[in-house]
Amino acid sequence: MSAIPPFAWLGIDLGGTNIKAGVVSDAGESLSQVSLPTEPERGPEAGIRRLCEAGELAIERSPLSREQIIAVGIGAPGTMDIPAGMLLEPPNLPGWDYVPIRQLISEHFELPAILQNDAQAAAYGEYWVGAGRGANSMALWTLGTGVGCGIIVNDVIIQGEHSHGSHAGHIIIEWQNGRRCSSGQFGTLEAYCSAYALVARCEEALQAGRESVLAEWRQTEKLTPLLISRAAEAGDALAEELILDTAMYLGIGTTTLMHVINPSLFVIGGAMTFGRNETALGRRFIERVREEVRRRGFPIPAGQTPIDYATLGENAGYIGAAGQARRAFPLPS
Amino acid sequence: MSAIPPFAWLGIDLGGTNIKAGVVSDAGESLSQVSLPTEPERGPEAGIRRLCEAGELAIERSPLSREQIIAVGIGAPGTMDIPAGMLLEPPNLPGWDYVPIRQLISEHFELPAILQNDAQAAAYGEYWVGAGRGANSMALWTLGTGVGCGIIVNDVIIQGEHSHGSHAGHIIIEWQNGRRCSSGQFGTLEAYCSAYALVARCEEALQAGRESVLAEWRQTEKLTPLLISRAAEAGDALAEELILDTAMYLGIGTTTLMHVINPSLFVIGGAMTFGRNETALGRRFIERVREEVRRRGFPIPAGQTPIDYATLGENAGYIGAAGQARRAFPLPS
Repeated sequence: MSAIPPFAWLGIDLGGTNIKAGVVSDAGESLSQVSLPTEPERGPEAGIRRLCEAGELAIERSPLSREQIIAVGIGAPGTMDIPAGMLLEPPNLPGWDYVPIRQLISEHFELPAILQNDAQAAAYGEYWVGAGRGANSMALWTLGTGVGCGIIVNDVIIQGEHSHGSHAGHIIIEWQNGRRCSSGQFGTLEAYCSAYALVARCEEALQAGRESVLAEWRQTEKLTPLLISRAAEAGDALAEELILDTAMYLGIGTTTLMHVINPSLFVIGGAMTFGRNETALGRRFIERVREEVRRRGFPIPAGQTPIDYATLGENAGYIGAAGQARRAFPLPS
Repeated sequence: MSAIPPFAWLGIDLGGTNIKAGVVSDAGESLSQVSLPTEPERGPEAGIRRLCEAGELAIERSPLSREQIIAVGIGAPGTMDIPAGMLLEPPNLPGWDYVPIRQLISEHFELPAILQNDAQAAAYGEYWVGAGRGANSMALWTLGTGVGCGIIVNDVIIQGEHSHGSHAGHIIIEWQNGRRCSSGQFGTLEAYCSAYALVARCEEALQAGRESVLAEWRQTEKLTPLLISRAAEAGDALAEELILDTAMYLGIGTTTLMHVINPSLFVIGGAMTFGRNETALGRRFIERVREEVRRRGFPIPAGQTPIDYATLGENAGYIGAAGQARRAFPLPS
C-alpha cells in the first residue's frame, strides 16, 4: 500500500444479506474493510443504524480520521430515486419503502453523500480499479438472485431519467411464450439466467424425467445454483447443460447490449459465476458466453470485445460507491 | 429567421436515394437546403463529387460565404469506422467499401469534417432542435428499409467502441425460432418491424389464405408498406393488423431500450411512419407502441416517458450532422 493519503471517501454497500463498507483512496485503494450482517427483517431504522455502524467501523479501521473523509457513497438494491437519494420499494429489503437513505447517512456522518444502485456501483468499481481499468466504456452483469447490470460510457454511469437506466436484466429476449420473471414480466433475460431461473429450469427438467444425480441429491438437499454446480463438477450432464444454457442466455443478452452500447468490454460478476476462472466449470461458462456472442453478434464488435470475469469480488460495490462519491465530491484543489 | 449569423456549419446527409445538405446556424436554424439524387450505382468517385456539389450548392444558397463555415458534418448509412472517418461496407451503397469519406470531403472544402452514422445524425438533429429539444437524453428509432437508432445521453451520442453503438435495430427480441433479419441474424427487432419485415409478414398472411383487398391489389401493384397502409386506410382488417403488429414489435424493442437507457423520451421517425400524427393510422400506430410499452415496462419509466413522432422530417440528418460538427468544432470564442 502507498503512503497514507490526506483524504479519502467512504463507500457503503447495502446488500440483502451483508453490509460492506470501506474507506477508499483517490487511487481506488481500500484503506479498510468491514462486513456486517444486514438483518433486513429488523426494519429500516435498525438497518440505517447498522449502515452507520459499518461506516464508523470502516473509518476507525482505516489510517485516516473522520475529518479526512470527503464524502460518502452508498450502493443499495432495488428501485430508487437517485436524485432524491431515496429507496422506493426494494424487493430484498421488505419494509424499507421510501427510506430517504442518502439524507439519513449524510446527517449521521455530517458529510455529503450520494446514493447509487448496487449493480451500478459495482460496475463503477470494476471500471475504476478492476477488470475495466483504463477502458472508455464497460458493461457489467451481476449474476445472482436477479440479473443486475451497470453501464458506464465516458466515465458516466447510465442512470436514466427515472433512475431506471442500466437495468438490462429486464430486456426482453423472447417476446412470445417467454418465461416468467420475478418482476411479473415475461421473456426477460432475468427469467432465463438468474439463480431462480436456473433452479426453475432444473426443476422442470427433473420433473420431465431427465436423468441426473440431482434427482437423488434433492431428496436431502435444497436445489440451489451451488448444488447444481456441484453436480456439474461431478460430471452430471444435465447440470452442466443447464449451467451452459445460462451462459447461452447471458450471451444473447450480451449481444443485445453490444448492439445498443458497444462498450469497450463486458465484465461478469455476482455470486452465480461458478468459481470464475478458478474452476473448469467457470472457464467453460464464460467461454460459452463468448461463443454465443460470436455466433449472434456483428463480426467486428463480437470479435474484438473482451468478455471477462470481474476481479474485485464482493468489494466492487463499496469501492464503486466511494468512487461515485469521489466523482461527485472531488479532492479539494 | 433571425439575423444572419457570422458563422455556421455545413451538414450533408448521404442517403441511398438522395443527398440532403444545408448550412445550419449556431441556433440550429437551416440557412439553406439542397437535395440531389445519390445515384449510388455510379460508384463512390461520382458519389463523392455529388456530395461536394450538394455542399457547395448549400453554401451558395445560404446567406453566408464559404469563409463563414466552420466545419462539415457528414451522415452516412451502414457500417463505418467513425474515428477513422471511413465507410466500411455500406449495404445500400454497393461498391463504396472503405471510402475515406471524411478526408475526401474535408480536402474538398478545406475544412475540418466529422463522419457520423445517419440514424445517429438524425437523432442528434431531433435532440438538438426537434422533438427532443431540451431533453437530457433521447432515443430515436428510424423506421424504413431497416430499423435505425440513435441514442443520446447527456449531449453525447452512444457511438460505441467499434462505431457499433446505438445499433438497436439488431437487438434480439426472440432468441429461439426468430424471424430472419437482412443481416443474416435471427430474431432481431429489424426482422419484425422493418419495411421488408412488414412486406414479408403480409406475403405470409396472404399465402396462408387470409382475406384482404391486398390479395387483389397485388395482382397489379407491388406489395410495399405504402400499399399496405393504403389498404389499412381503406378499412382492410389484415393490413391494419399487420401495421399495428409492427407497432407492437417496436413497443417491445422500446421496452428493452427503456430498461437499458431509460432516456427522457423516445422519438420515432423514418419513412415508414404511416403519416405520423397527420393520419388516423399514424395516430393509432404510435398509440399501439405506447400501449405495448405500458404493458411490458416498469410502471414509472413506462408511465412517464413520452413516445412521440420526430418533427424535423427528412432534414433531421443534415441538421444533426451539422450539429455534431458544431460540437466537435465549436464557435471561435
